[in-house]
Amino acid sequence: MPAVPAPSPLTAFTLDDLRTRHSVKWREFPEDVLPMHIAEMDTPLAPPIADALTRAIAQGDTGYATTGRLPEAFAAFAARRFGWRPDPAAMRLVPDVMAGILEVLGVVTEPGDRVLFNTPGYPPYFSCLPGMGREIVTNPLVRDDTGYRLDLDRLERDLASGVRAYLLCNPHNPTGAVFPEEDLKAVADLAARYGVQVLSDEIHAPLVHPGSVHVPFPSLDAPAAASSVAFHSASKAWNLAGLKASLVVPGPDARAVGAAIREEIEESAGLLGVLAAEAAFAHGEPWLDELVTALAGNHRHLAALLDEHLPAVRHHRPQAGYLAWLDLRALDLGTDPARHFLDHARIGLSSGPRFAPEGDPDQVGRGFARLNFATRPDLLTGAVQRMSATL
Amino acid sequence: MPAVPAPSPLTAFTLDDLRTRHSVKWREFPEDVLPMHIAEMDTPLAPPIADALTRAIAQGDTGYATTGRLPEAFAAFAARRFGWRPDPAAMRLVPDVMAGILEVLGVVTEPGDRVLFNTPGYPPYFSCLPGMGREIVTNPLVRDDTGYRLDLDRLERDLASGVRAYLLCNPHNPTGAVFPEEDLKAVADLAARYGVQVLSDEIHAPLVHPGSVHVPFPSLDAPAAASSVAFHSASKAWNLAGLKASLVVPGPDARAVGAAIREEIEESAGLLGVLAAEAAFAHGEPWLDELVTALAGNHRHLAALLDEHLPAVRHHRPQAGYLAWLDLRALDLGTDPARHFLDHARIGLSSGPRFAPEGDPDQVGRGFARLNFATRPDLLTGAVQRMSATL
Ligand SMILES: Cc1ncc(COP(=O)(O)O)c(C=O)c1O
Ligand SMILES: Cc1ncc(COP(=O)(O)O)c(C=O)c1O
Repeated sequence: MPAVPAPSPLTAFTLDDLRTRHSVKWREFPEDVLPMHIAEMDTPLAPPIADALTRAIAQGDTGYATTGRLPEAFAAFAARRFGWRPDPAAMRLVPDVMAGILEVLGVVTEPGDRVLFNTPGYPPYFSCLPGMGREIVTNPLVRDDTGYRLDLDRLERDLASGVRAYLLCNPHNPTGAVFPEEDLKAVADLAARYGVQVLSDEIHAPLVHPGSVHVPFPSLDAPAAASSVAFHSASKAWNLAGLKASLVVPGPDARAVGAAIREEIEESAGLLGVLAAEAAFAHGEPWLDELVTALAGNHRHLAALLDEHLPAVRHHRPQAGYLAWLDLRALDLGTDPARHFLDHARIGLSSGPRFAPEGDPDQVGRGFARLNFATRPDLLTGAVQRMSATL
Repeated sequence: MPAVPAPSPLTAFTLDDLRTRHSVKWREFPEDVLPMHIAEMDTPLAPPIADALTRAIAQGDTGYATTGRLPEAFAAFAARRFGWRPDPAAMRLVPDVMAGILEVLGVVTEPGDRVLFNTPGYPPYFSCLPGMGREIVTNPLVRDDTGYRLDLDRLERDLASGVRAYLLCNPHNPTGAVFPEEDLKAVADLAARYGVQVLSDEIHAPLVHPGSVHVPFPSLDAPAAASSVAFHSASKAWNLAGLKASLVVPGPDARAVGAAIREEIEESAGLLGVLAAEAAFAHGEPWLDELVTALAGNHRHLAALLDEHLPAVRHHRPQAGYLAWLDLRALDLGTDPARHFLDHARIGLSSGPRFAPEGDPDQVGRGFARLNFATRPDLLTGAVQRMSATL
């Protein structure tokens, strides 16, 4: 554990700098809490993004958004990064990934239809699907010593039970799992067999760590993949969630789904988000590479801290992203350890139970919490020490 | 008509500057068309807004939006500008006015309910209401020599016919009418009598011209006003439509309506939009005053040009905003004169028929077009000359 971390996007700002921000991460909790919850990063903007935004401000270029060259920039990025060549002409602009998912679910499912996703799962999946009259079917991931993977046998049983759509989250939030190609192929086979439409939330894909490979679901050579729809965004990898621009990327046989997205959804995207995302995909890779290296280093730092100060916490290395899914059950802090650490350490984690359904028979979230490590290494050190001191 | 217009926010950019923009106004038509359609302005950002955005870029303050001090900033602006003191605690953040209107209609009406608005009317009202299963009732404004006003007798008949909500647009797009207090009071009386919920779209309110007074509907001393909901935004007056932040402002008896707005709608607003709007309402009035003076001057210039080059066009002075609603019927250019001027003059106007329902018995849009005059005076000169030359 180096005493002075190498300069990186994660060390550019001091805590005082960060506390001047207006985003949810820095405003949701009182000032004495160190926030480590919502998926925002404590990084500066990548220089090409800052340049694009500065130019827009100088030009007064703040009217209604057009899609511009964003689809082409993403297609070129996907080709370089994932070896995938999605058709820019089929892509649709949406304000954010959740809006895109809800809109596409509105196209491919009916009220009353059952929609499956894996647990632990991104909390808005739980809140938004019932809001649009879709029934949730949860399917837990299984864990081994290195992390989480799909349980294909149980997945088959669940898909066979009558499910209209599968909202796959890959790379997976909160576990950081990157599903291997053979498992995704098995998913495509099951989806074809049981007539299930796949929606693939790939928002964390640009953040795959060294040693892992992201396979875009629609890039697989299988009918259910060709008719799947992926969701991509620069918002996680370049920290642009507040700028409101994401892409719906239909597979080659799902163009009609993309075409059915209402124009008013596209028009509600943010112009600065489009310009920032285009700059990110076209010119943001050097910064992204630096970031991913720093995130992997931050995870090693976090793992060493946990092993030293909180050795009973079970954890694993995420293969993508900057979220650590911590099994805190051995600490005996009850259902929601995040509550304990907020009250006693003034550290703001995401509550594990929010990643599982009410009354979850699989108990995937009870005793867990999610920690966002896209921050200064010294803040991670302080956080783990403060957490440890409460026990 | 001065040969060289005084410097103003409307003369800061050249046409070449404007053509580098990425917004709908500058990208929807081919390059040889001079766009004068969608409600964006050709102005630079007000300095306090540019400063707020520059600061956010430097801080990497681009995560998820919080509402921050925007409600307080708007409340103070409303007090100074309209003599109205709405309660900041009751306001809700939404990405844009249309999203706010649709969300509030979802709260106060049921599928199948009838919703009234005046015609000519803002085109998205026509497209979005049926999309959510609400039936449209249109009520035409009446015109005299100075402009448009409410037809209170017909309004009473229409409201009495069984209407759940009245979507009032004040100041009115496209006519620029600012409805006088006594007419708004009459509306409140009718709404109370017939049990109609009023939604007041006041997006153009900061752009009231000298000599007119905007009366916020919820500020009226009447039960139907107290239970009304207004929609406000910095997006028209400071040209921020692409940044995605607007406010739902419930009247004192409509707090429950505001509270019923779904959290995910609030979370889908843009952070830079919030920061820009807060700067606009708190520090943007000097710029706004300069702008409104320049807009009034531009309208005098436009009126003189029309009288000289297109004397058969009937038009009037808008009391707010930067949109001119032109009666072009005497030119005999058919249903949609905008089509003629696009094809033959390469001028992009908004088509009049889009401001009326299909098969409109009142024929309020046929032979009309809307011209956006928030542009350089010399571009207005050129546009009217090009239009005239096609006749
Ligand atoms: C898996 C996943 N999907 C969707 C989202 C939300 O993205 P957006 O803000 O674009 O709706 C997140 C945000 O963290 C996420 O982790
Ligand atoms: C009367 C009126 N309402 C609503 C809107 C749309 O506003 P927003 O972009 O905030 O949805 C406009 C835009 O011009 C408008 O003129």
